[in-house]
Amino acid sequence: MGLFSKDIKTMDDLFVHQLKDIYYAEKRILGGLEDMIGKASANALRQAFEKHLVETRNHITRIEQVFQKHGVEPDTTKCPAIDGIIDEADDVSSEVEDKRVLDAALIAAAQAVEHYEIARYGTLVAWANALGRSDCAGILQQTLDEEKATDEALTGLAEAHVNATAR
Amino acid sequence: MGLFSKDIKTMDDLFVHQLKDIYYAEKRILGGLEDMIGKASANALRQAFEKHLVETRNHITRIEQVFQKHGVEPDTTKCPAIDGIIDEADDVSSEVEDKRVLDAALIAAAQAVEHYEIARYGTLVAWANALGRSDCAGILQQTLDEEKATDEALTGLAEAHVNATAR
Repeated sequence: MGLFSKDIKTMDDLFVHQLKDIYYAEKRILGGLEDMIGKASANALRQAFEKHLVETRNHITRIEQVFQKHGVEPDTTKCPAIDGIIDEADDVSSEVEDKRVLDAALIAAAQAVEHYEIARYGTLVAWANALGRSDCAGILQQTLDEEKATDEALTGLAEAHVNATAR
Repeated sequence: MGLFSKDIKTMDDLFVHQLKDIYYAEKRILGGLEDMIGKASANALRQAFEKHLVETRNHITRIEQVFQKHGVEPDTTKCPAIDGIIDEADDVSSEVEDKRVLDAALIAAAQAVEHYEIARYGTLVAWANALGRSDCAGILQQTLDEEKATDEALTGLAEAHVNATAR
């Protein structure tokens, strides 16, 4: 970012900036998910993470398609938000020894990630539509729908898991 | 956190840790909202932030009530996630000069904050219920409902605002 001038001048600039932010975030999430698959104990949870890992690779491809349609070279911008969310997940999970408590912590961490993405893709869809890029909005909406479905699946796993663990 | 032992041993420990995390986050959000009120141009947006500032003070009081009911002294634990989300909001808003584009960036930043809170309070309500603390769950649910309502209000503002700005 510029030291002397403000780099985001238009809604289009803001849209591209946000696209670079989520491109960085999705790549960071890919590594985070691989780590979480290694830590998860319950089969259903590991399978949910594995499914979402495959989806995340698709989300990255979709962002590249949006960059291409919008005539911008794919690029990342550092995203302190996802760095903080994943660092916090690492901090907490390193403090937990019991496998079932760790699974609960992993589900909570994954839901924080999903909600970050739901917020960002929701914004991107709205901005793409406002900029007259319904083609880009349609691609981003597919990912938004998958993030919401993942969050709902995690809620179901959390409720079943935590009720069995806490008692 | 312990250097040689893992400090989170039970679901109860995890619940208290998460409570300390959101207590830190709400306090950080209070400062973030004051800053965003100062930057917002549109009256409707400033009013939405001011309303949520009042709610956020209540959320802090409610967390203190939950600590008290659960027999734990209110305390914070550093929350890298909210630090990252708010740092990112500051970074982006410092790059925007145009007032209407800045308002769009502020709404997006606020929605990232809301979604972080929705994820965390959703987890806390589930864990409180599983721990047999329906009294704590009820208090936390009130805040969760307000966070969801704020997010919906921001979506409405975003759609109206961005459609007017992008064209």
